Amino acid sequence: MKRTHQDIRRINRFAVMRHVIASAPVARRDIATAAGLSVATTADIVSELHDLELLAEIGQQESGGGRPRNLLAPDPDGPRLIGVDIAETYVHVEVFDPALRVLARAEEELHPQHNPPEHVVDRIVCGIDTVLDELQVPDDRVLGVGVSVPGQVGPNGKASVFAPNWNWRDVPLAALLAERIPYSVRLDNPLRASTVAELWFGAARGRDHVAVLTLGTGVGAGLAVHGAIYHGATNTAGEWGHTNLVLEGRRCRRGCVGCVEAYVGAPGIMQQLQDVAPDSPLLVPSDQTATINALAAALSVGDPVAEQTIAATGGYLGVAIANMINLFNPQIIVLTGWVADRLGEHLLRHTRTTAARYALDEPWEGTEIILCPIDRNPVSLGAATLVMEGFLSEAGTSSRS
Amino acid sequence: MKRTHQDIRRINRFAVMRHVIASAPVARRDIATAAGLSVATTADIVSELHDLELLAEIGQQESGGGRPRNLLAPDPDGPRLIGVDIAETYVHVEVFDPALRVLARAEEELHPQHNPPEHVVDRIVCGIDTVLDELQVPDDRVLGVGVSVPGQVGPNGKASVFAPNWNWRDVPLAALLAERIPYSVRLDNPLRASTVAELWFGAARGRDHVAVLTLGTGVGAGLAVHGAIYHGATNTAGEWGHTNLVLEGRRCRRGCVGCVEAYVGAPGIMQQLQDVAPDSPLLVPSDQTATINALAAALSVGDPVAEQTIAATGGYLGVAIANMINLFNPQIIVLTGWVADRLGEHLLRHTRTTAARYALDEPWEGTEIILCPIDRNPVSLGAATLVMEGFLSEAGTSSRS
Repeated sequence: MKRTHQDIRRINRFAVMRHVIASAPVARRDIATAAGLSVATTADIVSELHDLELLAEIGQQESGGGRPRNLLAPDPDGPRLIGVDIAETYVHVEVFDPALRVLARAEEELHPQHNPPEHVVDRIVCGIDTVLDELQVPDDRVLGVGVSVPGQVGPNGKASVFAPNWNWRDVPLAALLAERIPYSVRLDNPLRASTVAELWFGAARGRDHVAVLTLGTGVGAGLAVHGAIYHGATNTAGEWGHTNLVLEGRRCRRGCVGCVEAYVGAPGIMQQLQDVAPDSPLLVPSDQTATINALAAALSVGDPVAEQTIAATGGYLGVAIANMINLFNPQIIVLTGWVADRLGEHLLRHTRTTAARYALDEPWEGTEIILCPIDRNPVSLGAATLVMEGFLSEAGTSSRS
Repeated sequence: MKRTHQDIRRINRFAVMRHVIASAPVARRDIATAAGLSVATTADIVSELHDLELLAEIGQQESGGGRPRNLLAPDPDGPRLIGVDIAETYVHVEVFDPALRVLARAEEELHPQHNPPEHVVDRIVCGIDTVLDELQVPDDRVLGVGVSVPGQVGPNGKASVFAPNWNWRDVPLAALLAERIPYSVRLDNPLRASTVAELWFGAARGRDHVAVLTLGTGVGAGLAVHGAIYHGATNTAGEWGHTNLVLEGRRCRRGCVGCVEAYVGAPGIMQQLQDVAPDSPLLVPSDQTATINALAAALSVGDPVAEQTIAATGGYLGVAIANMINLFNPQIIVLTGWVADRLGEHLLRHTRTTAARYALDEPWEGTEIILCPIDRNPVSLGAATLVMEGFLSEAGTSSRS
């Protein structure tokens, strides 16, 4: 409950770094205005970020006869950040500079049937070695590794993954990684990673209250309150995918009855397609990706079966989003994940119609629903950004307040 | 999004005043320990609260041979705070001292059919005059008036009340009150007022993430994040009562389809009773209070119709609470309102059974569901506490940071 001056210092550091990334090259005075800070405080934080090699002066700007102003940008030669996106079928690894630009990437396949923790850790280590070798980055230039795990991350870095063929329960992933890689590791799930990416680089930048909804095989939300991730009492806030939508309805992969995921996750959409047209050629049995791709292609040519399937799915999603709007009252709702990426505006059209009917007028008028505008993998980007946030949070904790 | 040092000062003032109210008589050193502040910061805030006449020194405590310590308590002769609870059938007015103890109360009836704003304002003014006359409080000793309106309060103090026979839309209640009473006025709704009361005096004291659920004729939630009310983008966060529970289900009084209120509000419980036993003598047509009271009495003697009605209602409430747990992940959920007050533990037993089935394990194990422990009207208490919070927030804004 306590908020300290240290918290404020941290939030101000985030604001300065976000603005420099978004608007470089930029002068101290303009950072101060954008971040709502005094010039003195801004100069102090800039100096701190400069000492950490996250920022550099990259030139000067004339200032109408006065002394020219130094322009700042993220330091392209600064330390490297690594983002890892563990999905159910692959491990994706990216290296970033302090502007969070991708410098190199690697992808390692996972076994479709059998994924013991040691095997997944092997793939992560292999991916990291590949990208660091490619760029010739020495160990002491790596700020840390952010890892997104497709499940829940508990205290002490224990991960649970509920995907079929995984069945990880309280796997000590942080400890396993610490044995194999010499960098600090931060674990979280893709819902949080995507939300942090939206807060720094996407549609949520500068917004207070945000819900980022991931639609994929699994479904869930990341919530931000006052511009920062909201974790809840047990670090599980945002399990919107497992809120109930249909009393005594379908079960999801985790066994929840009638939850949102069972209707708007990829398996739920396949079920819907089957209900609409059991013999549809769009249905590729036990291949979610192929089926969703076939639906997307069919929608683009106005196929009635695809249209009916997505209308029904959008109806379910609309009710679930209206529930989010009525309870959480966000300023913006961002849809991300591979299903949102493929079905995009078609799905959103039906979703908006139903959500408008189920949401109360005031919060409905105070929000917007958009598709993720980030044109690269938001999960590995967000995972690396978690490293940046962690580093900025800890910087100066011993010497400054 | 910005958090300032002023915010921290405000939160620290809240923490000191809350602890003095809860633990008086108390020494500065013990306040510092409980609030997690330095002794110097605590002494500074205590001095400020003393200047505002909210605290007084009321004696000394021996301290093991050292200098005796001064003991502090809320100043019984400090300024008065007024809390007003506007309900659908009455206006309840209470005067409080800085310990938030009730000094006097008045109740004014409202017209069952016709409640234009001017009439309601008349009743409020009359109630305030009655209690202030009784106590002989001069105008300059009133810190302010907190008013709870059974609806939504928008920007600029405009109130909308969706109860039958009211039909208030954007009524400029703050302006109407300002014409009639010389004190500062704060408006909010009963969901928020009850939540503030729980944060200061009830089960939520010292908790970070809290949901206070009001069950009455209407149904809704107040949310607290990091120990402070969460308002959302348009000040309508917490409309849990109008999240969907049954697709294409019953309509509530506001016309929402299948929402939580339509099943667990008093009219929804009456409907449930009628579904279970259409000719039940427990059912008092068009009298919610009498019917809920009859159900409560019947439950206490194990009546099977009452038991079946409450089992079904608890089932609906359990799903709705599980949705709150999965999405918002609170540390504690408090049930308040007259329906919760009457049906209490009977309702809670069935609610817990269903919620345990629909909630995910981790957030379920990290929360508790309890009945409101405050043994007086939490709405007028909370409304007066909003005045205290407002005063503490504004105190010193010009001279200090």
